[in-house]
Amino acid sequence: MRFATDRIQAFSDGVFAIAITLLVLDLHVPPREEGKSLLHELGREWPSYSAYVVSFLVIGIIWVNHHQMLDTVRVVDRPALFANLALLGVVSAIPFPTRLLADYLTAGWDGSVAAAVYGSTMLAMSIAFSVLWLVITRERAALLAEHLDAATARRAVLRFGVGFLVYLAAIALAFASAPAALVLHGLIALYYCFDQLRTPAPV
Amino acid sequence: MRFATDRIQAFSDGVFAIAITLLVLDLHVPPREEGKSLLHELGREWPSYSAYVVSFLVIGIIWVNHHQMLDTVRVVDRPALFANLALLGVVSAIPFPTRLLADYLTAGWDGSVAAAVYGSTMLAMSIAFSVLWLVITRERAALLAEHLDAATARRAVLRFGVGFLVYLAAIALAFASAPAALVLHGLIALYYCFDQLRTPAPV
Amino acid sequence: MRFATDRIQAFSDGVFAIAITLLVLDLHVPPREEGKSLLHELGREWPSYSAYVVSFLVIGIIWVNHHQMLDTVRVVDRPALFANLALLGVVSAIPFPTRLLADYLTAGWDGSVAAAVYGSTMLAMSIAFSVLWLVITRERAALLAEHLDAATARRAVLRFGVGFLVYLAAIALAFASAPAALVLHGLIALYYCFDQLRTPAPV
Amino acid sequence: MRFATDRIQAFSDGVFAIAITLLVLDLHVPPREEGKSLLHELGREWPSYSAYVVSFLVIGIIWVNHHQMLDTVRVVDRPALFANLALLGVVSAIPFPTRLLADYLTAGWDGSVAAAVYGSTMLAMSIAFSVLWLVITRERAALLAEHLDAATARRAVLRFGVGFLVYLAAIALAFASAPAALVLHGLIALYYCFDQLRTPAPV
Repeated sequence: MRFATDRIQAFSDGVFAIAITLLVLDLHVPPREEGKSLLHELGREWPSYSAYVVSFLVIGIIWVNHHQMLDTVRVVDRPALFANLALLGVVSAIPFPTRLLADYLTAGWDGSVAAAVYGSTMLAMSIAFSVLWLVITRERAALLAEHLDAATARRAVLRFGVGFLVYLAAIALAFASAPAALVLHGLIALYYCFDQLRTPAPV
Repeated sequence: MRFATDRIQAFSDGVFAIAITLLVLDLHVPPREEGKSLLHELGREWPSYSAYVVSFLVIGIIWVNHHQMLDTVRVVDRPALFANLALLGVVSAIPFPTRLLADYLTAGWDGSVAAAVYGSTMLAMSIAFSVLWLVITRERAALLAEHLDAATARRAVLRFGVGFLVYLAAIALAFASAPAALVLHGLIALYYCFDQLRTPAPV
Repeated sequence: MRFATDRIQAFSDGVFAIAITLLVLDLHVPPREEGKSLLHELGREWPSYSAYVVSFLVIGIIWVNHHQMLDTVRVVDRPALFANLALLGVVSAIPFPTRLLADYLTAGWDGSVAAAVYGSTMLAMSIAFSVLWLVITRERAALLAEHLDAATARRAVLRFGVGFLVYLAAIALAFASAPAALVLHGLIALYYCFDQLRTPAPV
Repeated sequence: MRFATDRIQAFSDGVFAIAITLLVLDLHVPPREEGKSLLHELGREWPSYSAYVVSFLVIGIIWVNHHQMLDTVRVVDRPALFANLALLGVVSAIPFPTRLLADYLTAGWDGSVAAAVYGSTMLAMSIAFSVLWLVITRERAALLAEHLDAATARRAVLRFGVGFLVYLAAIALAFASAPAALVLHGLIALYYCFDQLRTPAPV
């Protein structure tokens, strides 16, 4: 049995939308205490805000890419369905490493551990995304819309490889400096944003 | 590549629906304690209820307006997609300043800080909304439904400008009185409700 | 401008689905402690389970009814949109009185207060539902599908009236016994379930 | 009155997507403490991760099956609507036994109680699923798509029976070893995944 992509998209959109919105639950309101300035306390929460912004961008971009990928196919079969479920599993888990990184960003070695966990989640997401792409494009004739030719598919796989290397670098950087690793994740996300923006629209 | 507006709407609707429903998680049930009256304790939570109602109205109205805006276009391109993502980023963050304002509304200077953060979020939302509008309407011929003429588009931009001024005023008012600023936000929301209600239906 | 009902339904479905699923966050796992039996501790949480089941049924039934109501109209106008928003406001708030009732069900007078708050929420929901119905059906010619005749519309209004009285009775009963009031809410929900089930299907 | 299956699917998809994403809220970030290693603390949280993965798989598979079931019917009537609501009730409750099992997995007898509660939830889910199937298929002529013949329907009922027995076994196993019961639930989920994958696609 095959599934129309619009049902998969609807369920996936739900998971993306919830994961991206649940991030806000980890922005802590400092407890009201005598002799403490709220402005100062809020200022100390910068790791939470940074982690929030980066994870929001990351999930947002995966959503855009996921969307575009599913728009190129008419139906998905069972293996694609489960590959998609694996990707959603990683996406829905993102609030956890985000929280972890926010809480431990300035904690020395533990901060590095937290940043490495965050980077590993991104790597897992990137692998799950590539697997989904390979599963979806493996049956060219039956599944693909005509406008996706072999060259495009190959270029995509190449880009995935670069993605893996970058995420591996971010994991390595975590052990030098957790904040630097978070900055790198932010830069990767921004790169993908602008890359998306300048790609010519073939329609 | 262009995206059909219905997919953008589905994802956006998800984020709006979740953000508006997550607000309820910040209505606290007072802990059960000897010698305390629940009615009295609930009464003390009025800042939470007020902030809840105002933020619910705000998100509800943005949803209505967002909806109407996307109904005027047939497809959105990549820049519009990311402008929309920026707006959703602000919307999904609204539960945080709401919680902050609820907890600090009566805390003197800290209350002013909290109300200013709340007002700044509304200002950011209003800017993100205007940017989305400008991005969507920049390519008249390709993107717009016919019934949106140049005059309407210009009038909308004018209204955005007024919106900025009002939100700036609310931020300023926060430093005089946090509760007064919350009341102003409630009034702005109500104004938009009734404004929506009396606008003649052109369709 | 009018809105196609399917967009309203999608947003409303999102709010219903989230509110009904957020209820689970208030089922507490007892903290692990020496010398305490989990089975016994879980048994003591019966107020949470009862409140969960009743609120789940209530939101489920409102969803079914809301659905059926919107299926009778082709488009909704702005007043209906805001009446719908008011209903969603009450629905999305239901997890709060549920939590309140679960925590205070056995707390004597405070339990009565909690049950009265719960009952008032149901009354507010029922009023919001009736207002939405009246707003939607006020412009017969433009808005209604043909198969909804005047007699049906009038019968519906009558049933709303009975609903108000029953919820008022539940609020009154809260002051005699909070658990009895919760049982009554459960019975009302079950009554609506079976009432729905035996209504002949006119297709 | 009958409901188009796409509306039921949209609401159900929402509940599935939220329940599956709420699971992440129960992955705890260990509190920052002097002299404790984050890596070690994270390692101690393995019961949470295991329970998360198993429950994610379980909800994911129910979603796939639910989807496939509803794709075989054109419309659902009221009894099916309420049978579906009962299934959603169990699905949306799954985060609670998941949390319970994660917290008590290594707690001896209490762990067995937690695992039995988890197993009972799965049994309840399996019963609710079978009831929904029976309700949906009871009016062959009116409701079923042609490609679902009597033999398929009968085979499905047989499989449900096997499912009951397996979940009963998992409940029994809980009293011998809670972790073993969790492993069994994981294996059941994996079995269903692969079973889904190898079923020939009749389109």
